Amino acid sequence: MPDQILDAHTSDPLQMGWMQGLPPAPDKRLSWTRADHMRFPTHRHAFSRMREFLPTARVGRGAAVWRFPVALRDDLDAVRFTTLDDRRELTWAQSLPANFTDAIVVLHRGTVIYERYFGTTRRDTPHIAFSVTKSFVGTLAEMLIHEGRLDPQAPIADLLPELSASGFADATLRQVLDMTTALAFSEDYTDARSGIGAFSMALGLTPRPAGYAGAGDVYAFLPTIAKAGEHGPAFTYRTCNTEVLGWIVARTEGKRLDAVLSERIWQPLGMEQDADFLIDPTGMPFAGGGLNPVLWDLARFGEAMRLGGVVNGAQVIAGPVVDSIRAGGSRDAFSSAGYAFLPGSSYRSQWWMMPGNSGAFSARGIHGQAIYVDPAAELVIARFGSHPVAASSGNDPVSLPAFAALAQHLIRG
Amino acid sequence: MPDQILDAHTSDPLQMGWMQGLPPAPDKRLSWTRADHMRFPTHRHAFSRMREFLPTARVGRGAAVWRFPVALRDDLDAVRFTTLDDRRELTWAQSLPANFTDAIVVLHRGTVIYERYFGTTRRDTPHIAFSVTKSFVGTLAEMLIHEGRLDPQAPIADLLPELSASGFADATLRQVLDMTTALAFSEDYTDARSGIGAFSMALGLTPRPAGYAGAGDVYAFLPTIAKAGEHGPAFTYRTCNTEVLGWIVARTEGKRLDAVLSERIWQPLGMEQDADFLIDPTGMPFAGGGLNPVLWDLARFGEAMRLGGVVNGAQVIAGPVVDSIRAGGSRDAFSSAGYAFLPGSSYRSQWWMMPGNSGAFSARGIHGQAIYVDPAAELVIARFGSHPVAASSGNDPVSLPAFAALAQHLIRG
Repeated sequence: MPDQILDAHTSDPLQMGWMQGLPPAPDKRLSWTRADHMRFPTHRHAFSRMREFLPTARVGRGAAVWRFPVALRDDLDAVRFTTLDDRRELTWAQSLPANFTDAIVVLHRGTVIYERYFGTTRRDTPHIAFSVTKSFVGTLAEMLIHEGRLDPQAPIADLLPELSASGFADATLRQVLDMTTALAFSEDYTDARSGIGAFSMALGLTPRPAGYAGAGDVYAFLPTIAKAGEHGPAFTYRTCNTEVLGWIVARTEGKRLDAVLSERIWQPLGMEQDADFLIDPTGMPFAGGGLNPVLWDLARFGEAMRLGGVVNGAQVIAGPVVDSIRAGGSRDAFSSAGYAFLPGSSYRSQWWMMPGNSGAFSARGIHGQAIYVDPAAELVIARFGSHPVAASSGNDPVSLPAFAALAQHLIRG
Repeated sequence: MPDQILDAHTSDPLQMGWMQGLPPAPDKRLSWTRADHMRFPTHRHAFSRMREFLPTARVGRGAAVWRFPVALRDDLDAVRFTTLDDRRELTWAQSLPANFTDAIVVLHRGTVIYERYFGTTRRDTPHIAFSVTKSFVGTLAEMLIHEGRLDPQAPIADLLPELSASGFADATLRQVLDMTTALAFSEDYTDARSGIGAFSMALGLTPRPAGYAGAGDVYAFLPTIAKAGEHGPAFTYRTCNTEVLGWIVARTEGKRLDAVLSERIWQPLGMEQDADFLIDPTGMPFAGGGLNPVLWDLARFGEAMRLGGVVNGAQVIAGPVVDSIRAGGSRDAFSSAGYAFLPGSSYRSQWWMMPGNSGAFSARGIHGQAIYVDPAAELVIARFGSHPVAASSGNDPVSLPAFAALAQHLIRG
């Protein structure tokens, strides 16, 4: 049976029995060496067990947990919306399997009103957040800018001399933050020879072929990326920008990104669990996509951003940091990237501004990872997914109208 | 400079700069592929960062932490004792570098009276416990025996049909628990071709040579172990026994050992941090030595054993379980193993009974890992170490008299 005709039910990792058995039978075992953690349908199990496939660093929580009140509602499942591509009418409940959702929680006015878990993901299971990681890193960089420790106009060559002969050299920190760099690096996840494919092997996220002669780690790879065009005018989504950003944050703080994230966000926000951070062969975290938090900790970050950085009455992320992000980026720069489902959107400091003028913004990761914040609706959604398609376009036609319909439903009351 | 002349100070991982730098310079990087995590002096860094070298499972803590009162004392450092081998007089303070101690905490009557951290180990840093892991697994097995779910006289072939053609087949569960099995398996850590060397490669703890044709995982390896002699009369320390025991515990509970350990010990004992558990290629935890807890969580286990299984007034480990362990094993069986520094000791359910009739008992791991409980002195010591020698004999001549002197000092008041 070809993989592509498996739906969310028939590809359910519990149904498929991955890694069940003590020990699992050979045909139920998943292996890093076969990249089972990075392909459908086996990734449906692996995404919530990444530390069992790969080395990880610990992002430590603090002693106090930021607790959310819970008042579950049963009216959300019936909310209706129309998909953006094939114009089907679906309910919210139907949207969850349509997007291969692994876990989802909805907060309204700071109260948990809805949560669901599927497959092998549970409330206490860290799940890979993929590029949602970028929004954490972008927020850390904005903190350092706000504190005057980083100049957004500084050229990268000044911040990281190691990149002075690379395509990043004359890009500014702001251009890296907003992904308006022009680089010879393709983000095509289906091509092992693309920039992201080569990056993934340097990182150690995917196995290396026999006789591999590529970069041995991320910090050997980044200096090899050349310039392609002019930095500034156009947004192009490239994970390598976030690796540079994470490197700059670490250099500025004088400690590894996992430690910075723990001190600046995980502890002050009262996260309930440690997070696992995938690392490269040098031990440095995968800033562009390696964070594995539990679902509610994603929601905590979203709620803190909704509240302008205030947690339990304390300003734990400076207000201007949140304001800078929520002001959004250049719509002109964004429009050239041609995201059919995101007209009028923009990208700012590793966050996505949603279409229209709702003020909604989102952290987005491939295979359906998301933090979605709609301040007008006082709404925060956190979601993990294991969609077969490694691109946001795989779930945007369902997710974007579903999230917007939920916001309207809550606004109507 | 040959490794053997490095002392605790000159081999300090902070002094040596392992993994310092963002990213670390090539000559400061440690690598799993070179087995840097398993050799001196680089292991002094790696022992408290094992999850950054290897895949791990999470042993989850519960919501409530068992808190110890703290009243530090300054009189312990001056306690004097005489080493067992070269009859030197040392102070307690001198014993710590002599044994390449990474972290140590002392509890008297349930109060933390002393703690020290060295190198890169801190209070919140999980550290590999090596064979201290075995005492957790032995205690879990004793729980299942107490509950009538396991028969200590059952032959292994009945419990694990996969081993019915192996040397374990006609050994009883009790013999596996007490390591009185007779097997063709050598525990020589210095010989890669020994039983433990082959086991370590099957497990994936150490790298495999090119053209490796050995077992692909622990559960392919265990059935290859042959019988050598008669089970029963003699204690011989072999890690493979604990792998069998962990497998039996998992089969009996119907879940992986990491989950059992979380539910039966980590949560009820109020451990303060998750632990990391090294896993084999099938995802099953390394029962004989793969647990990485924080120091105080080791102390919690010791304190619960000292108190007969009572934690915060609740019986969380059944009294008869603790009694069975503390009753000790056969001294005759033990004596044949020839431990020069442990005259009159015995081994019971993966715990070591100390010499003499003090009633003290210990969980012991290579390179200096230990839980030491002396009920008469109302004393619990938990220690992590990174001694150059991969055997308890490396630190016993210093540790055993140091621990005994501390107990006497506390008894005297």
